[in-house]
Amino acid sequence: MAESQQNPGSGALVLLSGGLDSATTLYLARSKHSAITGLSFDYGQRHRIELDRAAEIARVAGIEHHLIKLDASVFVGTSLVDRSMAVPEERSDEAMATGIPSTYVPGRNILFLSFALSYAEGHGLSAIYIGANAVDYSGYPDCRPEFFEAFQAMANAGTRAGQEGHPVRVETPLIRLTKAEIIRIGTDLGVDYSLTSSCYQPDDEGRPCQKCDSCQLRLRGFQQAGLIDPLTA
Amino acid sequence: MAESQQNPGSGALVLLSGGLDSATTLYLARSKHSAITGLSFDYGQRHRIELDRAAEIARVAGIEHHLIKLDASVFVGTSLVDRSMAVPEERSDEAMATGIPSTYVPGRNILFLSFALSYAEGHGLSAIYIGANAVDYSGYPDCRPEFFEAFQAMANAGTRAGQEGHPVRVETPLIRLTKAEIIRIGTDLGVDYSLTSSCYQPDDEGRPCQKCDSCQLRLRGFQQAGLIDPLTA
Repeated sequence: MAESQQNPGSGALVLLSGGLDSATTLYLARSKHSAITGLSFDYGQRHRIELDRAAEIARVAGIEHHLIKLDASVFVGTSLVDRSMAVPEERSDEAMATGIPSTYVPGRNILFLSFALSYAEGHGLSAIYIGANAVDYSGYPDCRPEFFEAFQAMANAGTRAGQEGHPVRVETPLIRLTKAEIIRIGTDLGVDYSLTSSCYQPDDEGRPCQKCDSCQLRLRGFQQAGLIDPLTA
Repeated sequence: MAESQQNPGSGALVLLSGGLDSATTLYLARSKHSAITGLSFDYGQRHRIELDRAAEIARVAGIEHHLIKLDASVFVGTSLVDRSMAVPEERSDEAMATGIPSTYVPGRNILFLSFALSYAEGHGLSAIYIGANAVDYSGYPDCRPEFFEAFQAMANAGTRAGQEGHPVRVETPLIRLTKAEIIRIGTDLGVDYSLTSSCYQPDDEGRPCQKCDSCQLRLRGFQQAGLIDPLTA
């Protein structure tokens, strides 16, 4: 990690899902910007506990936080919203490395980043941080470096800030890190992972299923980092 | 214009603002697709009459229509939403051809297209139509062909449909037409322009100001097409 450099005049937006990756991203962004705004989205996800967690993570980190409610009609055909569809469980590494699972939400990161882009440009913020990761992940197309490069090019072409030479930057500080590396960095920065929720289908008390892709990736990440996950301790 | 070809299995989405361009685009799309859904956005625009017009245009055209309400915090710093800012009036051709006016809404087409993309991918629609125009327009960066090409590339990289080789196509059939050409095409297709509203700051009865960029471009378009605008007849 580079030494943290504060850019006091430059505020930034962090997409905050309530999960492990976005919480770590928030702390990374906070080490580089004087003012941070967290943005979370209620899109009818079955794992709604993450919205409460996002609010709590923001409160503990001392940042401003906005929850945006999206029209419920926008995301269909995904098991993260549609409770009649099954969330895949106990998939092998091979299965996770090939194909796109039913938990894919059509255009989700595109829509979240577009909201963030309008908000950031309107409020004069210099960057948007998103905790996407293309190493220990489920194969979503909108979590790959190629996608974020294309999004940045599109944002540069389609906004006043971009055309005037000071585009809003899309920052993906976790994109090439393993889950274990993310957890170590976050632990060093003081992230309280007991506040985060990663599971796609937690029970009514918010306890993780330990079977979905997201739980499995988290479990292995803590194991490889040589740390204990406070959620399962 | 090419002969209209029906693709009966392929539905499409049309972004419907209630203005002249999007109404024309709807009729063009309807000539090529068996099923059309219109999508409109309530983003706190001062010219809200256009939302009623969009609904009426959809009804008359016999298509399904959805109105999406966006969180009011998303668009700031634009005179199309902020009533304390002045809408530019009676600008010269030279002024319209240079710079980006205060009516620019940060990232608006990016956000609208992103909503449309999620909706289209989730519902298995093949195309999104948007009535953007880069000839007789106000200099918005998100109305230029370069922007739409970049958006398409980003959508191809960031969606399952794109990665599986059947991307949702973003269609901009008006992009290189003059306003007069658009009006002639729409008139041939049977668009009732009396239902459309173009003004950025209509009065309480919905009457156009005749001074904003949008009114001026419309006025000249009808003049050059040799037709009478039913709104001002």
